[in-house]
Amino acid sequence: MPDSAASRGTLEARYGVVPLEQVRAMSGLELLQALCDGRLPTAPMCRVFNGDIVEAQFGRVVFEATPTREHLNVMGSVHGGYVATLLDSCLGCSVHSALAAGQGYTTVEVKVNFVRGLSEHTGPVRAEGKVIQVGGRIATAEGRLTDAAGKLLAHGTTTCLIFAI
Amino acid sequence: MPDSAASRGTLEARYGVVPLEQVRAMSGLELLQALCDGRLPTAPMCRVFNGDIVEAQFGRVVFEATPTREHLNVMGSVHGGYVATLLDSCLGCSVHSALAAGQGYTTVEVKVNFVRGLSEHTGPVRAEGKVIQVGGRIATAEGRLTDAAGKLLAHGTTTCLIFAI
Amino acid sequence: MPDSAASRGTLEARYGVVPLEQVRAMSGLELLQALCDGRLPTAPMCRVFNGDIVEAQFGRVVFEATPTREHLNVMGSVHGGYVATLLDSCLGCSVHSALAAGQGYTTVEVKVNFVRGLSEHTGPVRAEGKVIQVGGRIATAEGRLTDAAGKLLAHGTTTCLIFAI
Amino acid sequence: MPDSAASRGTLEARYGVVPLEQVRAMSGLELLQALCDGRLPTAPMCRVFNGDIVEAQFGRVVFEATPTREHLNVMGSVHGGYVATLLDSCLGCSVHSALAAGQGYTTVEVKVNFVRGLSEHTGPVRAEGKVIQVGGRIATAEGRLTDAAGKLLAHGTTTCLIFAI
Repeated sequence: MPDSAASRGTLEARYGVVPLEQVRAMSGLELLQALCDGRLPTAPMCRVFNGDIVEAQFGRVVFEATPTREHLNVMGSVHGGYVATLLDSCLGCSVHSALAAGQGYTTVEVKVNFVRGLSEHTGPVRAEGKVIQVGGRIATAEGRLTDAAGKLLAHGTTTCLIFAI
Repeated sequence: MPDSAASRGTLEARYGVVPLEQVRAMSGLELLQALCDGRLPTAPMCRVFNGDIVEAQFGRVVFEATPTREHLNVMGSVHGGYVATLLDSCLGCSVHSALAAGQGYTTVEVKVNFVRGLSEHTGPVRAEGKVIQVGGRIATAEGRLTDAAGKLLAHGTTTCLIFAI
Repeated sequence: MPDSAASRGTLEARYGVVPLEQVRAMSGLELLQALCDGRLPTAPMCRVFNGDIVEAQFGRVVFEATPTREHLNVMGSVHGGYVATLLDSCLGCSVHSALAAGQGYTTVEVKVNFVRGLSEHTGPVRAEGKVIQVGGRIATAEGRLTDAAGKLLAHGTTTCLIFAI
Repeated sequence: MPDSAASRGTLEARYGVVPLEQVRAMSGLELLQALCDGRLPTAPMCRVFNGDIVEAQFGRVVFEATPTREHLNVMGSVHGGYVATLLDSCLGCSVHSALAAGQGYTTVEVKVNFVRGLSEHTGPVRAEGKVIQVGGRIATAEGRLTDAAGKLLAHGTTTCLIFAI
């Protein structure tokens, strides 16, 4: 396992899946901070959306990513699924950041509103998720996707189910 | 994957963006059927989610895709964004399939419920979108994602804005 | 309005709350059919929306109601909350209809799309809810609101949490 | 028409519909402030949910209401439709508060997450809606419902269509 961001250089080390025993032993925030710091491999899906988690606090997580030509739909704008993927990432992880060791979650539903279209020239975008409410079984969160100038591109909410792992 | 995929020839030809003048001249259904038949390049995003549109009728569109290791999240299950991308694709295109030449649409919001998790071993999945209502300015659609055995994996709805192009 | 409404006798008897022990002892479908038949008092909220449950099968429930001047917003059309109330009713009850004795549910989220406005002259409307999926902890349902001619007025979905009572 | 809050005393004067010509001549904020001040009759639906609009600023509106026995469902808790009605009210009006004279809106969709159940003993609740984004054709808003102690009971979002009236 890489022990610094720099050592993420090799592809195999950089992207991967964290074993369940390791997930179980860490609070959500510890795990997410280990992802931010490169102490754990990040999700393979991060390569797909050309981005990664960059900040994690209790109840708040930020992803950064840059859409490319690969993410276009037939009309030449960035596919809505790209936007949904970034919002789903920051929303789910913001819930995760508020969970204790031994707690897991699954996303029950996610809803995304598209405000402005993205193109291959949009440049880096930022998806920030914040927990609204964490209960014993259900948690909700809200998120916003903005461009480098802070302009709102999309926003969304999620509902997650919490359980013991 | 569509039977006609082979007929799309080289990779460069297979994925691409359709020029606006061409989009403008075709009804939504004509354009989507041209994508199904490989007469037009399909969306670059299709390569990202390893799938494609396979059926298009008036008010109904089907995508097929197969998730791989590339689409995993840190926990080792397929990222929710993958599922959202497939549903957003079939939902938006089902609306498009009901539009006349000279009409365009943009997705205003999409909502996805995740019913069963997908893994890298799930195999091919099928996302079917159907129009609920097409009005002068707003259209809505519903969609379902199923595995090869017909088991429901996720479902969703969308709201689109229709305008002249 | 149900044919059996008359059999509910006095107003006090007609609207009321069912004691928890009684709820616990019946399957959801038994309870909902008792409401349809007037063997149990129906919800006080039914008086507010001027309607009632009229059909209950496993996984499918129908409410009928008639909006009046009381339900108007400042603009003179029927308030969206009236529509949301009918859809929430049929959606939640369709989930309930699929639960066994000893199982309870709570609505986690509901989403409503408004297709056509209602006025005080719309007349009786019909809200039909159908279960999409019932799992061990989460259930989802979809519903449609139509006028007497079968025209679609609104549609929606819900997510419910299931638990032991 | 009553020209002060006090004069709302008579029922006929207090609740009513505002003629379209009058709506057309005022900005959304002017109209909503006239409702807050009792210079215009408030919506008939306000009587149904036992509450009213109490604050209106540009992009932000607050309703207060108190649920009663009338709003209960069969299980004895406040019907989800009551909560949806309050959120739909504050969400739609927050969008309206950001519109110019001659602009109208209709709610395309509303989504509500229920966090804590309400009972007939909950007392007064407060629904606050805030605009997220107002564009030329589409506006979105978010809202929260809280009890007198500020505890979160529910939250939601809406999408509205804007047009010339």
